[in-house]
Amino acid sequence: MSQQDPSKQNDELKYNMQDMIVDTTGISWVDGVNGRLFYRGINIAELAAHATFEETAWLLLTGKLPTKSRLEGFQWGLSNMSHSQEKVIRIIEEFPQHSNPLLVLQTGLSSLACIDREDEYLEEENHIEKVMRVIAQTPVILSAAYRHYLGVPLLEPRSDLTFVENFIYMLFGNIPSKNQSRCMEIALIIQMDHGFTPSTFTARAVASTFSNFYSATSAAVGALSGALHGGASELTIDMLKKAKLSGNPVKYTRELLNSGGKIMGMGHRVYKTLDPRAVIFKDLLTQLTQKDEKDSDLKILSEIEEEARKYFKEKMLPVHVNVDFWSGAVYKKLGIHPVLYSAIFAAARMVGWCAHILELRQNNKVYSPNSKYIGDINVPYIPIEQR
Amino acid sequence: MSQQDPSKQNDELKYNMQDMIVDTTGISWVDGVNGRLFYRGINIAELAAHATFEETAWLLLTGKLPTKSRLEGFQWGLSNMSHSQEKVIRIIEEFPQHSNPLLVLQTGLSSLACIDREDEYLEEENHIEKVMRVIAQTPVILSAAYRHYLGVPLLEPRSDLTFVENFIYMLFGNIPSKNQSRCMEIALIIQMDHGFTPSTFTARAVASTFSNFYSATSAAVGALSGALHGGASELTIDMLKKAKLSGNPVKYTRELLNSGGKIMGMGHRVYKTLDPRAVIFKDLLTQLTQKDEKDSDLKILSEIEEEARKYFKEKMLPVHVNVDFWSGAVYKKLGIHPVLYSAIFAAARMVGWCAHILELRQNNKVYSPNSKYIGDINVPYIPIEQR
Repeated sequence: MSQQDPSKQNDELKYNMQDMIVDTTGISWVDGVNGRLFYRGINIAELAAHATFEETAWLLLTGKLPTKSRLEGFQWGLSNMSHSQEKVIRIIEEFPQHSNPLLVLQTGLSSLACIDREDEYLEEENHIEKVMRVIAQTPVILSAAYRHYLGVPLLEPRSDLTFVENFIYMLFGNIPSKNQSRCMEIALIIQMDHGFTPSTFTARAVASTFSNFYSATSAAVGALSGALHGGASELTIDMLKKAKLSGNPVKYTRELLNSGGKIMGMGHRVYKTLDPRAVIFKDLLTQLTQKDEKDSDLKILSEIEEEARKYFKEKMLPVHVNVDFWSGAVYKKLGIHPVLYSAIFAAARMVGWCAHILELRQNNKVYSPNSKYIGDINVPYIPIEQR
Repeated sequence: MSQQDPSKQNDELKYNMQDMIVDTTGISWVDGVNGRLFYRGINIAELAAHATFEETAWLLLTGKLPTKSRLEGFQWGLSNMSHSQEKVIRIIEEFPQHSNPLLVLQTGLSSLACIDREDEYLEEENHIEKVMRVIAQTPVILSAAYRHYLGVPLLEPRSDLTFVENFIYMLFGNIPSKNQSRCMEIALIIQMDHGFTPSTFTARAVASTFSNFYSATSAAVGALSGALHGGASELTIDMLKKAKLSGNPVKYTRELLNSGGKIMGMGHRVYKTLDPRAVIFKDLLTQLTQKDEKDSDLKILSEIEEEARKYFKEKMLPVHVNVDFWSGAVYKKLGIHPVLYSAIFAAARMVGWCAHILELRQNNKVYSPNSKYIGDINVPYIPIEQR
C-alpha cells in the first residue's frame, strides 16, 4: 500500500532510546569507564563489605544510611509485612506447576493492588509503608512460586530471622549458615540498582501516571521477564556444563569464540572494563569453594574468563565479564535452582524499582513521550467489496 | 547529606519525555492542529462511518484493510479464542468484590502468560495468533471482573454474536439492539490508538525486552490504571450530575471556572482544536437521545461546553472538549456502570497496544534509555554507631 519515502527509513534509525537521556536520578551511578557502581554516592564494594540488606535498601529508598532506630523500625516493618496472603497463594496455585517464578511474581504483585486493599496511593505520607509492603511480599511470592514449582508445601517466614535468612528459609526450608546467608545478602545488595535498565524505566513509566506501587513493580517484572533483559546467569551455567563436559575449558572457549559463538556473561553496554559486581561475585564464589575442590566451577570459569580475555585482547575489543558471568555459579553453590536465578535478581532489584518510584513521585513527570509518524496520510477507506 | 549544585536543579527541568521523540510509528497519526486522527492513514471519521471493530483492528495490526476472506478468518479466530479460562476465572474470584476491573485485567492478562502456555514468543510466525488471543481474552476477563463486581454469575460468549455484541452480552446478559451495539462499536473503534500515550509506550517498552504479549499488555493496563492517564470520563459524569442538580448548568459552569475549578474532559496536550473523537462521541450521544427528552445529558453537556467555550475564548485559551467529555454520557446511555468506563477504553486500546508490539518486533530496539546522575559521588560508608 505505502511506498516508503527513504527519509522515513532514516527516521527509524534516528531514534534509539539507548542514545537518549530521558530523566535525572540521584539513586545510582554507573561509572562505566572505571568499573564502579555507586548507590547514593557510596561505592557498592563498601556496602558489600559492611552493610546489611535492610541498611542498603533504606539507603537506596531514602538517600541516607539509617540510624539505629530507623533501621530497627524498618526491619520490624518488613518482617511484619512478610506473612503470606491466602488469596495470593490460591492464585499461585492456579498456575501450571512449571511456571516461571518471574511470571508468577508479575501476577502476584498485580493482584495485591486489590487484595491488599491499598488503593489510596496518592497521599505522600504512606509511601515508605507501601514500598515496604512490596519489598516484603516479593520473597514471599517468589518462594511460594518456587515451592509450587517443586510441588511441595509453602513455608511461612519466621520472626526470628532476618530478611535474607527468611528468603532462603522460605525457599528451601533450611536455616542457612551465617556464611551462606551473608553470600546471598551480598549478592542481593550489589544487584539492587543499576541506573535506568528497561525494567527500572518501566517501573518509573507506569508509576508516572500515579498508578499504584504494585501495578508499577508488576510491570517492571514483566520487562525483566524478556529474554533480552534477564536470564544470562542461567545460560552461563549451561555454558559451564558444556565446558566441563568437553574436558578442556580453554579449548572449548577458543573454539566457541573462533566459530563466532558467544561467551555468556561477557560484554556490557556501559562497562568498558570489569563489571564491579562481577568482581564481588567472583570473591563470593571463591569463598564458597573448598580450596581442594577438583574441577571446581571457579576453576573452570576462571579458565574460560582468562582465555576469552586473551581472545578479546588480540582483537582489541574492550569485552569483559559482567555480573552474570559468576552469579549463576554462586547461586549454584548456594543450592539454588536455575529457574530461580532471574527471580533472585528481581528480589534484589525490587528495592531499586521502589526507590525509583519514590524518587519520581517527589516531582512527578508523566512519561508520555512523542513518536514520529512515518506512515501515509489521507488514505481512503475502500469498501470490502472493492479490496 | 548532599548539598545540591544549582546546575543539577536545571538538569531536573531539562529532561522531560513530553518534549522528546523516542521512536517512529506508522500506526496512528494525531493531527493536533486540524483535529484529525488517522489509523494507518485513514481518517477515523471514515472508519466510524463504515468499518467494523474487527476490520479496524486488522487494519491497525497489519497496516491494511482486510480482504473478505482475511476478515472472516480473523473473526473466526477471535470468536474461537473467546471462551473463558477456568483458572483465570478462579483467580478473578479471589479478588475482593469491589475491585477495579482494570486492576483485575492487569492480573488476568499477566496470569495468562503461563496459564495459556504460550511461552514461546520468539517465533515470528505466530505473532498475529498471540495478539488475537490477547484481544479476545480482554472482554472475557473484563466482563468476568464486572460480574464479580456485581456479584452475579459470569456468562460465556455466544458463537452467533460479533465481537462487540458478545462484549455487551457478557457484561449485561442481554443481546444488544443493532443501534446500541453499533454505538459501542464506534466508541471502541475511535479509541483503539492514539500515538504514544504512557500505556502504549509502556507496552512497547516491556515488549522490547522480548517479554511475552500478555506481560507487555498487562503492564500497559497498569499504566492506564493511574489517575493521570485514564478515568476522566467517570469524573465527567460526576460533573454532569452536579450541573443537573444545580438547576442551572450555565451558571454552574461559569462559577466553577471563575473559582479556578476544572471542567472535566476539556483540554488536550496535542489537540489545539476539537478532539475528533469528541465530535464522534457527541454524534453518538445525539443518536442515543430521544428528541423530546427533558433535561437530557446531551442538553446539559452542550450547555456546559458552550459556556466553557465562551470562557476560554474570552481568555484567548485554545481549550476544547476532549474524548472524555462526551464518552461517559454515551456509556451511561448504553447502561454501562461508571466503574467500567476505563475498562471499556482498555478493551479498545488493547488493539493499539498489540499493533505497537507487532510494529516494534519488526525491527526490535530495546527501550533502554539513559539517566543523568545528579547525586553525590565518593560518599564514605559510615558505620552505624557513628551515624
